[in-house]
Amino acid sequence: MTYFFNDISRLTYAPDSTDLAFRHYNPDEVIMGKRMEEHLRFAVAYWHSFAWPGGDPFGAETFERPWFGNTMDLAKLKADVAFEMFDLLNVPYFCWHDADIRPEGDSFSESLNNFKEIVDYLGEKMETSGTKLLWGTANLFSHRRFMAGAATNPDPEIFAWSAATVKNCMDATHKLGGENYVLWGGREGYETLLNTDLKRERQQAGRFLQMAVEYKHKIGFKGSILVEPKPQEPSKHQYDFDVATVYGFLKEFGLEGEVQMNIEQGHAILAGHSFEHELALASSLGIFGSIDMNRNDYQSGWDTDQFPNNVPEVALAYYEVLKAGGFTTGGTNFDAKLRRQSLDPIDLIASHAGAMDVCARGFKAAVAMLEDGTLEAMRAERYAGWDSAHGKALLDSDLASIAAQVEAGDTPPQPRSGRQEILENIVNRFV
Amino acid sequence: MTYFFNDISRLTYAPDSTDLAFRHYNPDEVIMGKRMEEHLRFAVAYWHSFAWPGGDPFGAETFERPWFGNTMDLAKLKADVAFEMFDLLNVPYFCWHDADIRPEGDSFSESLNNFKEIVDYLGEKMETSGTKLLWGTANLFSHRRFMAGAATNPDPEIFAWSAATVKNCMDATHKLGGENYVLWGGREGYETLLNTDLKRERQQAGRFLQMAVEYKHKIGFKGSILVEPKPQEPSKHQYDFDVATVYGFLKEFGLEGEVQMNIEQGHAILAGHSFEHELALASSLGIFGSIDMNRNDYQSGWDTDQFPNNVPEVALAYYEVLKAGGFTTGGTNFDAKLRRQSLDPIDLIASHAGAMDVCARGFKAAVAMLEDGTLEAMRAERYAGWDSAHGKALLDSDLASIAAQVEAGDTPPQPRSGRQEILENIVNRFV
Amino acid sequence: MTYFFNDISRLTYAPDSTDLAFRHYNPDEVIMGKRMEEHLRFAVAYWHSFAWPGGDPFGAETFERPWFGNTMDLAKLKADVAFEMFDLLNVPYFCWHDADIRPEGDSFSESLNNFKEIVDYLGEKMETSGTKLLWGTANLFSHRRFMAGAATNPDPEIFAWSAATVKNCMDATHKLGGENYVLWGGREGYETLLNTDLKRERQQAGRFLQMAVEYKHKIGFKGSILVEPKPQEPSKHQYDFDVATVYGFLKEFGLEGEVQMNIEQGHAILAGHSFEHELALASSLGIFGSIDMNRNDYQSGWDTDQFPNNVPEVALAYYEVLKAGGFTTGGTNFDAKLRRQSLDPIDLIASHAGAMDVCARGFKAAVAMLEDGTLEAMRAERYAGWDSAHGKALLDSDLASIAAQVEAGDTPPQPRSGRQEILENIVNRFV
Amino acid sequence: MTYFFNDISRLTYAPDSTDLAFRHYNPDEVIMGKRMEEHLRFAVAYWHSFAWPGGDPFGAETFERPWFGNTMDLAKLKADVAFEMFDLLNVPYFCWHDADIRPEGDSFSESLNNFKEIVDYLGEKMETSGTKLLWGTANLFSHRRFMAGAATNPDPEIFAWSAATVKNCMDATHKLGGENYVLWGGREGYETLLNTDLKRERQQAGRFLQMAVEYKHKIGFKGSILVEPKPQEPSKHQYDFDVATVYGFLKEFGLEGEVQMNIEQGHAILAGHSFEHELALASSLGIFGSIDMNRNDYQSGWDTDQFPNNVPEVALAYYEVLKAGGFTTGGTNFDAKLRRQSLDPIDLIASHAGAMDVCARGFKAAVAMLEDGTLEAMRAERYAGWDSAHGKALLDSDLASIAAQVEAGDTPPQPRSGRQEILENIVNRFV
Repeated sequence: MTYFFNDISRLTYAPDSTDLAFRHYNPDEVIMGKRMEEHLRFAVAYWHSFAWPGGDPFGAETFERPWFGNTMDLAKLKADVAFEMFDLLNVPYFCWHDADIRPEGDSFSESLNNFKEIVDYLGEKMETSGTKLLWGTANLFSHRRFMAGAATNPDPEIFAWSAATVKNCMDATHKLGGENYVLWGGREGYETLLNTDLKRERQQAGRFLQMAVEYKHKIGFKGSILVEPKPQEPSKHQYDFDVATVYGFLKEFGLEGEVQMNIEQGHAILAGHSFEHELALASSLGIFGSIDMNRNDYQSGWDTDQFPNNVPEVALAYYEVLKAGGFTTGGTNFDAKLRRQSLDPIDLIASHAGAMDVCARGFKAAVAMLEDGTLEAMRAERYAGWDSAHGKALLDSDLASIAAQVEAGDTPPQPRSGRQEILENIVNRFV
Repeated sequence: MTYFFNDISRLTYAPDSTDLAFRHYNPDEVIMGKRMEEHLRFAVAYWHSFAWPGGDPFGAETFERPWFGNTMDLAKLKADVAFEMFDLLNVPYFCWHDADIRPEGDSFSESLNNFKEIVDYLGEKMETSGTKLLWGTANLFSHRRFMAGAATNPDPEIFAWSAATVKNCMDATHKLGGENYVLWGGREGYETLLNTDLKRERQQAGRFLQMAVEYKHKIGFKGSILVEPKPQEPSKHQYDFDVATVYGFLKEFGLEGEVQMNIEQGHAILAGHSFEHELALASSLGIFGSIDMNRNDYQSGWDTDQFPNNVPEVALAYYEVLKAGGFTTGGTNFDAKLRRQSLDPIDLIASHAGAMDVCARGFKAAVAMLEDGTLEAMRAERYAGWDSAHGKALLDSDLASIAAQVEAGDTPPQPRSGRQEILENIVNRFV
Repeated sequence: MTYFFNDISRLTYAPDSTDLAFRHYNPDEVIMGKRMEEHLRFAVAYWHSFAWPGGDPFGAETFERPWFGNTMDLAKLKADVAFEMFDLLNVPYFCWHDADIRPEGDSFSESLNNFKEIVDYLGEKMETSGTKLLWGTANLFSHRRFMAGAATNPDPEIFAWSAATVKNCMDATHKLGGENYVLWGGREGYETLLNTDLKRERQQAGRFLQMAVEYKHKIGFKGSILVEPKPQEPSKHQYDFDVATVYGFLKEFGLEGEVQMNIEQGHAILAGHSFEHELALASSLGIFGSIDMNRNDYQSGWDTDQFPNNVPEVALAYYEVLKAGGFTTGGTNFDAKLRRQSLDPIDLIASHAGAMDVCARGFKAAVAMLEDGTLEAMRAERYAGWDSAHGKALLDSDLASIAAQVEAGDTPPQPRSGRQEILENIVNRFV
Repeated sequence: MTYFFNDISRLTYAPDSTDLAFRHYNPDEVIMGKRMEEHLRFAVAYWHSFAWPGGDPFGAETFERPWFGNTMDLAKLKADVAFEMFDLLNVPYFCWHDADIRPEGDSFSESLNNFKEIVDYLGEKMETSGTKLLWGTANLFSHRRFMAGAATNPDPEIFAWSAATVKNCMDATHKLGGENYVLWGGREGYETLLNTDLKRERQQAGRFLQMAVEYKHKIGFKGSILVEPKPQEPSKHQYDFDVATVYGFLKEFGLEGEVQMNIEQGHAILAGHSFEHELALASSLGIFGSIDMNRNDYQSGWDTDQFPNNVPEVALAYYEVLKAGGFTTGGTNFDAKLRRQSLDPIDLIASHAGAMDVCARGFKAAVAMLEDGTLEAMRAERYAGWDSAHGKALLDSDLASIAAQVEAGDTPPQPRSGRQEILENIVNRFV
């Protein structure tokens, strides 16, 4: 036992509690035929909670965790504390980058050996824990070698280093029974077009993703390959800008049947979209996979990665998740970090517990809206004309024929109310 | 003669003038083997200069043009003034929407008859004028019937009305020798997801665009079909968000060989991109077509459609245009409107003249940068590793083989300076 | 009777209703010793609901109201419909601009006569209605004469015209028993610094506001003079950017004891603030007055003026209002407009009813948070050191003395957790 | 000698050079009666160029400078390299934070002793160098003890620590002959209102600034006290949001005659203003002091601190500086950092040289615009009405008198063209 959280007990469902407990998240409650835990599939992000020191561009580390440092012993202590927290929260999943869990070595081999040893250590802990791996991923952005890109680097050696890293991260994810493998390209973009061969870099990125897909099949990994779009930060421009951009990219490289999206609320906001837009679009294109359920501050122009706390917003997101059929291999990852002033162990627990409750409330509201059916009935009614024989025929017609009809008929069509406020009122009955 | 501009003479190239003249734009100057006029292919936008009344969301009409009103006589007066201005500016092209040039009728037929009569009138004027049609387009966004979309409307009758309108606008463009046909989907998006069937609407938009392409071939129109991306405004979200989004859309509907992009600086900015990003991306995807060379105010969150006035920015844009091979059917349209306080006839002339000069300066700087070659040499040198046999082989390899090599070799690759400031200094030698 | 809303009955409090009713707003419910109606003091904005035609920068009128037009008869019909709606909603207040309620005349006198006649007509209606005037204001931004400013116009004649208009609007507000008079300077700013004498314009604005305050005292108007900050739109830059800016302006012109703020959520957002920031700041500076409780779309860069629909956000706003002591002359105005697709009479009613319910929920949550006391206790505890004798002495000390103490003592102070997530969890217990 | 820049020679003015040289900056060229060096008063920022490791929120150090580390020897090596660079650039000024120049100690005294030793070392170097101190400042934001504020911290001990630090930094600035002392409050703001007593914190900040002013007079420091506004980052909201906000703050605490502004382009942009707006406003309020001439990327939502590279923008800024009377104690500081990929010594030199040239071009263009006089003549003509007896009398009048005149006269005033595009064309003749 690490005793980092030594005065905190395992959280339980206690709806009237004002103490550290779940007031809304009840993992065993059955909703639409499935336990809430299986619907929401919560995951803790190893990096923010255990590897991030609390720095920002104007300030250094604020957290002084006993496991900070670059040794194997500290890496194991970190894992011990992580699993202690997973247990306190009763959270079914976690996620990692290679760099979160292992000390950096002086060479590729040394880093890799460290990594393999820690992966085994995690494997042992998972055997006695209820927490599984939602996804693994490679950190191809923090080390200075990636400053000009990983797959999209002007230097082929960095591409090779990155490919070798992904290979080993996929192996480890597979070994630990991970249900997905994620690629987020924080440095796959550029700082200035003046030094960038955009066409070449996009080709490199496309080939890199093809290789990952090929390798998945080669090793028999049955999980999903997920790409996580983000428009910018750290790069000025990132190639995986948003869902629509990645869709075009997948089509260009013949990968649209192989890769799905891991969609983050904060990234959607930075790209100028609502979270539910990105979810609805991915669903409509058949590439919805998983979510990062954090939030961005609407007044800050960068990725603030805060825990979700607005139930109505969360409800609209889960409404789209439900309409997409819910999660299969995906889940609800909290790619969220404590504010850097939240120094205490209890802050780590309370932030996750609060987020899980907010998600549970939002999810239940979304279920209620869907079961009520009013919203979907009104939507269907609005488009009913397109289900008529006339509507269907129109799409099979051509401009000249349609023009002939319109010119003959000549009655201007009349607009109908879009009823936005009434629909918003309906939503507010449930959130 | 309308005498609207009665005390203004035809502008000439007079490099030292402080009067109303071109100080930089010299249409007949030969650069890279072609006249400047043929490189830049300037176009005036009929709507902003002749149809827009100067209103904004908080204020009514400020311009009190003698041709404002909804009669055929006034429409012809408007055309007379337009061609008077084209002549004063010696501008080789103009562009229109149907709604800019004809009075709205009470029925489709009445509007169409008005339209045809004015198209003939424009045709006559073009015979005696040096100004040709760069592109035509249909206004499917101003009338209340389009409030919920044109092709993407929930009502099939609006789709039909829109299709019939496009058919007639394509006919007119063809008849007038237009070199492109443009589609901008200002209402092809949504205000709220709550009343929107995003999947269905995107299918409608895809089919609509296919129909336009089919009709182009049917009538033998040899110009280009161009889509103009914009992320939002008037709609909260527009389906043609940016170049990358439209590319995915074209791939989805099998149109990537048929449709190119008309890219506007202000729309790029609203989407979170630089103008040159959108140009470079379109070029790399083989879908670059034409540009709208206006600018947006960086401190305003909406489309301000101002005349370009920053030479360094314009130079970087033309640099990408030149790298894309320059314009073929496309050109430099000023989708720019006077500030609503710029009431006088001379404001119309001076704004265009200033913009043409800014473009000429930017273009000449771009040519100089390209001919100097330093920028491209440094770019090529940065990626030189990928041209080696090793670099090429890497892209044909696979994760496992690459990992084996990296683990064997094991020397961490070293990053090299990106030299951004040095490159920016080089640009500043030319702008 | 106008019968515009002919099939809609007066809304009642019916907490379980799914029909058109108040599910949360119960005007007679006593909270903290006061009726909910007296706490919230709701007001309908005449302009958005009755004068706005539904246009946007890319589209014309969508609403086809029977009272649209520029005659006295139509102005009276508009007033009849307005009061019909006030009655259906049982709303205690409304607000107007002169231009909303009267037809524009060809001269100042004609407009003024129209205005006075309508003011009398409104006065008569108010006698038989429960709806009073929260505030009046002058529209000094829509007509083309104000395109370059009202008080800040380069032309003294426009300043005079504006002053005369404000004089008459203050008279009318006084006559109708209005509880406040508001100034919003939509054109009091600039489009470009190149043609602007910023110093001179700010002096003009300062003198103008002084005149309004002097006139208030002259006529014995006991209501409050309120300034409504907005950073931009329609102007590129507006002098009343935000609360902090206006505070400096009031100090500069000696008006800080005479003028309070009317704070709008959407304007706060456009200025890069949260709504609650602006409220807390105004309260701390002693200039809090009233609120415009609409919301802005977070993904749109302009003022969308939507009805509020997010209860947690509204709760945080009312929390600040309560901490400021609640409203005195101020109230909750809905400066909100229907989406332009919301064509039907029922949309007008449902939008207001939904907004009133959202406010009632938010207000009750804010009361509960305040009565619970945990948030304020934690805040007080965080600053407790400043209430000690040592803390108080520190502020009376000087740099040299403090430095001597610190250098002598020399123990680095230790940071304490800011507990943001725990505080957010507490809020979520109430919203 | 450090030989860090060992193959780089002192830069000279060589207008036709394509090598490392000044093509536009000629320190000895006399313009408007003063040497260019004395007009522009360039300063290098110690922190970005010598202390910043190249990290960002997603990546670690990229620069591997031989002087990185926390010892006195390394601090002296850093100073040696800094002065080597100052000499190569022939730059007349530099600026520092305490934390940039000295190693952090374990106690206040140890840090202070380190600081004093380095200040003496810098003093010695300055004796043999042409480079003087433009301003000193205290870093009250990087260390974790400042995470919740310096002057505005909930803990009085941090206030005391900060006060003692400022005292010593002011002493050192005075000792080194610094011409200004700057306060930038990166942590003087909040992350969430939920844990913040905004009123109390603003009072603390006000008293702190008063103490600094009192201490300036006590020690006889003749330089200026400058506050540097920034709206946010690192804090979500910072109290010194922009010039207008700080002006109100100065008025509130009786400091408007004692404190001026240090205005940064990037901070203006983050606050939603143009740089020239902030300059013009500060000038009109009599609080203009100095500038940080860096730029922000318009597509990034955070402070990118890039070297200036857009001559037209820089020209408009210097135009406002010139209209404000030019610099007295202030100057042109480059609060700009290399892009983190710009690893090489030459990048440091070239970035500064390029920026100095851009400023020189912009400055010369501004001088030319001012000497030409057209812009100012047009501005004066626009407001001429206010210089008439009638215009002057108007401001001394009152609403009732003015209304009587307007109602009697009754002729609607006519708007005149704002001529924005013509003015922009005039600017383009000079940039």
